[in-house]
Amino acid sequence: MTTLPIMESILSANDEVALGNRRLLDDRQVIAVNVMASPGAGKTRLILRTIDALRGQLRLAVIEGDLAGRVDTDTVAATGTPAIQINTGGGCHLDAPQVRAALSELPLDSIDVVLIENVGNLVCPAGFALGEHADVVVASVPEGHDKPVKYPGIFAVADAVVLNKIDLAPYVEFDMEAFRAGVRAVNAQAPLFEVSCRTGSGIEDWARWLQSLADSR
Amino acid sequence: MTTLPIMESILSANDEVALGNRRLLDDRQVIAVNVMASPGAGKTRLILRTIDALRGQLRLAVIEGDLAGRVDTDTVAATGTPAIQINTGGGCHLDAPQVRAALSELPLDSIDVVLIENVGNLVCPAGFALGEHADVVVASVPEGHDKPVKYPGIFAVADAVVLNKIDLAPYVEFDMEAFRAGVRAVNAQAPLFEVSCRTGSGIEDWARWLQSLADSR
Repeated sequence: MTTLPIMESILSANDEVALGNRRLLDDRQVIAVNVMASPGAGKTRLILRTIDALRGQLRLAVIEGDLAGRVDTDTVAATGTPAIQINTGGGCHLDAPQVRAALSELPLDSIDVVLIENVGNLVCPAGFALGEHADVVVASVPEGHDKPVKYPGIFAVADAVVLNKIDLAPYVEFDMEAFRAGVRAVNAQAPLFEVSCRTGSGIEDWARWLQSLADSR
Repeated sequence: MTTLPIMESILSANDEVALGNRRLLDDRQVIAVNVMASPGAGKTRLILRTIDALRGQLRLAVIEGDLAGRVDTDTVAATGTPAIQINTGGGCHLDAPQVRAALSELPLDSIDVVLIENVGNLVCPAGFALGEHADVVVASVPEGHDKPVKYPGIFAVADAVVLNKIDLAPYVEFDMEAFRAGVRAVNAQAPLFEVSCRTGSGIEDWARWLQSLADSR
């Protein structure tokens, strides 16, 4: 099989552009956060809650990655937050050149934090650097407590884990201790935020973490 | 970029093995069903309910695809159903050679239907033929009614769509008509089964569909 060297060269080309993105962001003192999750875990809802929680404190922008369509971008833009759509045309993850193109459309000098919503996929996005300062994995209670054990790669690279939809815990079999142990087994350090984007529970702690990331510039 | 011709050649090598799998299955009069879904949509739960529903009527076997581990295979095997684990080693989808290896370990002469549980991923598995007779996409209510619109590729190739976790509908914002319309927009023909693997609701219709697939041999 010739796939391995080919994949390596694609990755290194991506990594080079990612490094350029990182330099651009650092020059403008913008923090970029790569938000990854399964389809339907609540990435967009989390971003909307974050916009609300940090209004007047941090100047946010959003890059939305989707296979097709722009409904989430329109929803985010309706809050007055700069939002750029990337359509991957069926591609299973964002890559650094796509993010570079989106960054060139954002007013970086008046932005503190860019939230990059990756394609809904708990596998592929973990392998592609975008130039981000932090990787966040959003899991959700109805997906089950076994996700960190079953998809260890993405949880291992996370700088923070958000567990969403904790309001649904009474209606499903979800073992919170098993979830926490699963995260810890692959990632000893990432903080875990247990939230409900529906009720707003737990959002404050998550927003404080983002704020401290921005303060570290 | 040289990725396109390379991907094409990987796909055609996969397709050749998939054709061989299909010939092998047809020779032994075994129907193979490729079960695809997001992480945590309930693929394994659906398979367990199906085993229960068709006990004494169809001889089932299961191939379990996971990035790592074998917990689902052990759960299925505990029902007395032949079950083979494929670990992709981080790979985001099953491919035909992996399924070929698993088929060689199954007693095909005493099996009617093989259920192949693909890696939890709503993008990549749609692009890789395994030799299957039917593709099934499992969605779930907490993922939201917009999934067919956001991940059109996989819903377009489905021969049947199963919507799981309908027991959670009272606790989330889920517009059933929007979900149905989204499926219909990309797939005019696939039957839609609305089920709860938790309560067993709707499983009978789904099992009847599988039975009719087996009867078509």
